[in-house]
Amino acid sequence: MEIIPGGVTAPKGFMASGRACGIKKDGSYDIALVCADDTAIASGVFTTNAVKGHSLQMTMEHIKDGRAKAVIINSGNANACVGEKGKADAAEVANQAAKLLNCRSEDILFNSTGVIGVPLDMDAVRAGIKDVIASKSYEGGHDAARAIMTTDLSVKEFALEFEVGSAKARIGGMAKGSGMIHPNMATMIGVITTDVNITQNLMEKAFKEAVNTSFNRISVDGDTSVCDMVVIMSSQKAGNNVINKEDSEYIAFKDALGIVCGHLAKEIVKDGEGATKLIEITAEGAKTQEDAYKIVCAVAKSPLVKTAIFGEDANWGRIITAAGYSGAFFDYESADIFIGDLMVCNKGAAVAFDECRAKEILKKDEIKILIRLNTGNCRDRMWTCDFSYDYIKINGSYRS
Amino acid sequence: MEIIPGGVTAPKGFMASGRACGIKKDGSYDIALVCADDTAIASGVFTTNAVKGHSLQMTMEHIKDGRAKAVIINSGNANACVGEKGKADAAEVANQAAKLLNCRSEDILFNSTGVIGVPLDMDAVRAGIKDVIASKSYEGGHDAARAIMTTDLSVKEFALEFEVGSAKARIGGMAKGSGMIHPNMATMIGVITTDVNITQNLMEKAFKEAVNTSFNRISVDGDTSVCDMVVIMSSQKAGNNVINKEDSEYIAFKDALGIVCGHLAKEIVKDGEGATKLIEITAEGAKTQEDAYKIVCAVAKSPLVKTAIFGEDANWGRIITAAGYSGAFFDYESADIFIGDLMVCNKGAAVAFDECRAKEILKKDEIKILIRLNTGNCRDRMWTCDFSYDYIKINGSYRS
Repeated sequence: MEIIPGGVTAPKGFMASGRACGIKKDGSYDIALVCADDTAIASGVFTTNAVKGHSLQMTMEHIKDGRAKAVIINSGNANACVGEKGKADAAEVANQAAKLLNCRSEDILFNSTGVIGVPLDMDAVRAGIKDVIASKSYEGGHDAARAIMTTDLSVKEFALEFEVGSAKARIGGMAKGSGMIHPNMATMIGVITTDVNITQNLMEKAFKEAVNTSFNRISVDGDTSVCDMVVIMSSQKAGNNVINKEDSEYIAFKDALGIVCGHLAKEIVKDGEGATKLIEITAEGAKTQEDAYKIVCAVAKSPLVKTAIFGEDANWGRIITAAGYSGAFFDYESADIFIGDLMVCNKGAAVAFDECRAKEILKKDEIKILIRLNTGNCRDRMWTCDFSYDYIKINGSYRS
Repeated sequence: MEIIPGGVTAPKGFMASGRACGIKKDGSYDIALVCADDTAIASGVFTTNAVKGHSLQMTMEHIKDGRAKAVIINSGNANACVGEKGKADAAEVANQAAKLLNCRSEDILFNSTGVIGVPLDMDAVRAGIKDVIASKSYEGGHDAARAIMTTDLSVKEFALEFEVGSAKARIGGMAKGSGMIHPNMATMIGVITTDVNITQNLMEKAFKEAVNTSFNRISVDGDTSVCDMVVIMSSQKAGNNVINKEDSEYIAFKDALGIVCGHLAKEIVKDGEGATKLIEITAEGAKTQEDAYKIVCAVAKSPLVKTAIFGEDANWGRIITAAGYSGAFFDYESADIFIGDLMVCNKGAAVAFDECRAKEILKKDEIKILIRLNTGNCRDRMWTCDFSYDYIKINGSYRS
């Protein structure tokens, strides 16, 4: 397995582009295209929010048949909560792109991310679609990744090559995140491409598992957006024998996919709004899987834990408190807590620990918190980031 | 009904005191006593966190018989998660106070608030208990209210006098809050005193209802502390005929109690860590009571909503988003949203509203958000505050 450049255009059979069409006032890239040479097999995971953006609702319909030609994403405007115009705009985008790409409009996936409740500027969008389609290329992955950013500070893309039988296959991906990142389901916008030859069913199965341990295990602020999705498309052009059962080649694909999704998910957390630290929270020894999940989730969401880590303060009282109100079975007098490799709480009681050592651990960019419950065999892990002044700054003035 | 001074010592039959015993390093008040002349009837509501402080655990036992002589509270140290010493220390406090007050140790309620995981400095506590008992007076309510503060900026106390039949009765209260304020159950530390003559059962019933619409309807950061409680004691000395059924005199008491608890609850939110604004969130027209609760809760907890209000930004997209992920039944295409009296969303779609008018509303210290669901008849209301730079500042360096 080898990390390679190229992002979503690393796999065979995909072109991409990113351009500025004027939705963002500062002139930065705001429209992205990822396009398969032929129709690709496709699958998606979507927000569980009861409110869904108009573009996203259309995409959820279009992907039902398991195939797609292209994904178009605009940033700067969520096309959400604008009424009938929002639906009509989404349909128009699909129709326009289908005409230019010579495919069915049902094979166009479209999503929008940004401010809610403001109608799309369709003059800008129409020109943008023309532009991204005209400029699409086999080297366009990076531009596409740039064009889906909102408050992201870093471009998030990743690709790798791996062996499947005697052939080499590739998986590429791009993502955007920043605020409103929280499970469940598609916790951001992500597009994964691959050229592995696999059935749609098995690709979907591997994809859902990969999403579950990556994008569904990150939290920035506990809010779940109305437009979030991750989609995967395969051109099936890698040249391997088709994967149609859960054999070693399927496992190779699933593992590689897990790495790509995990990498992008962590990139999202690291670049969480105002984040200065990546925090990995693990609960082990839980009675049930659900208990482990509830605990990592509560700790990852706690503003008090997140501000303590920002302040590089080994305030494990806030960790045990969050575990306590998580709703999980939690016998705190059996629980141990570690910050890095430092035990700070033993069977629910304080341990005299070396504060200097704790400071050293907390000064790092990546902090591990382990809650060992000692009441069972179940385990879960979640990534989150700290809460800093900049989170407030960014979110106190996003719309204006 | 008349607002009166005196806090917890406003009702007949209660003395109080607050002193500095050295738990807090800066020399400010850190030990409080509220003491009935005779044994009072008592009831309490306690944190639902699976982790509970040692002092609190003892108090939950002691109050089971529905009576108490005194409440002692120290601030600066939570006496939580310190193992066997924590239990022993709590017991010693009860024994010492019982001896000095000439009562059973089971009639002493004791609670502690502050840092978790650090053993109590018992030399300081012992001297403090002697001191508060020696200095207790019928004018001591204010000092007691000062002594329970942690990161609170304002002293929270309130009292009123009301008519019960031909007699006049009083209710007084003090509270501390600031961080970690979130339902359910006793979301902070509060002590309510009254002299109304009522049975313990009916006092408890009225108290639980009052807590439910006040202290259980506030949120500062969604964290639920391990030491939170509200207790009520009555000296039964007002001179009214005993209230032993749910008649008009019971209603008079319940209404007055609701006002005292509501006032203190709102004071807690206003003084939330770093808070600059009080936000009242109402959901009406929900299908079920639980749906209404889930929606106000999700909106009140959303860091994105709270930072938007701090930034005086009418970003209602974040409000509808939070309602959408609340887990409640939420048909967003039927929902209207108001900020103050300004409709910003109609049937799930943006309304062209006057941004200047919105700014005017958002500049105020108290902001009302109304989500009208139009799908049923149920309603709930919660108070929260905004998230500011100071929240991060306070919580990034609390322990040190």
